[in-house]
Amino acid sequence: MKSESVTTARQYYEDLDPDGLWELETATVTRDEIIEFAERYDPQPFHVDEDAARESMFDGLIASGLHTYCVCNRLATEAFFHQVAFLCGRGLADFRWHRPVRPGDTLSGWVELGEMRVSESDPQRGYVDVEITGVNQDDEVVISWTAQALVARRPQ
Amino acid sequence: MKSESVTTARQYYEDLDPDGLWELETATVTRDEIIEFAERYDPQPFHVDEDAARESMFDGLIASGLHTYCVCNRLATEAFFHQVAFLCGRGLADFRWHRPVRPGDTLSGWVELGEMRVSESDPQRGYVDVEITGVNQDDEVVISWTAQALVARRPQ
Repeated sequence: MKSESVTTARQYYEDLDPDGLWELETATVTRDEIIEFAERYDPQPFHVDEDAARESMFDGLIASGLHTYCVCNRLATEAFFHQVAFLCGRGLADFRWHRPVRPGDTLSGWVELGEMRVSESDPQRGYVDVEITGVNQDDEVVISWTAQALVARRPQ
Repeated sequence: MKSESVTTARQYYEDLDPDGLWELETATVTRDEIIEFAERYDPQPFHVDEDAARESMFDGLIASGLHTYCVCNRLATEAFFHQVAFLCGRGLADFRWHRPVRPGDTLSGWVELGEMRVSESDPQRGYVDVEITGVNQDDEVVISWTAQALVARRPQ
């Protein structure tokens, strides 16, 4: 993991295709992973307790929304962020959970680009809105958000 | 964890003080936890590789922004969400990372409430904007976001 993430070739701001589409690989979310993640970061009853989950509006255990975000971010990192000269994330916009993720669901999705502009304060950097959509095995959208990223421009 | 999160007494939508302030406990983020989290969900070089991190714009290892979000969400769950009849999160708004979090940093913060309104489609539910701010041990803001939550109204 370490060496891969360090040595991957990078596309600079200028190299990014504003009409590009980057498809995510897949990741299956297990019951154990759902409970382990939620006990640590989002211990709501319907994420960690089967009986309580059956009594909730979800009628069964569902993944923490943070967990869904993290799993899809991992897929987006492999499909997109590792391919570009990504500097950092500044924030998120239009972040929405559309449907619950349940044990055994297989997530995938895609990355597209929104607004892009060169930084006025530092012309060696560009602002890129990275639009990420996560879907389940039935092609239903489960999550979508825009990562507001800083990407390096090609060194002059 | 399970029994605690299931049995905690709840405040309904009507019980919430729109001017309330809920202070977070503290959590210290370790180097091992930063690397473990990032290898799984956000494997950028500056989150998982000390040498690469020194070469980055951050001049050293920093926590994944997702990790900072997860740690602060855990604190906000204990301080606020477990106290209320929380149904689910719909999305996030105004999500910003303000400063990096480094190994050994101790996070804390607070919860405030923004806009609140009863659902028109289901009068048994209310929409509540939950504004969360995370700070480090020097009281510098590291993260802030608004969780768009659904909270149950008091059963009639």
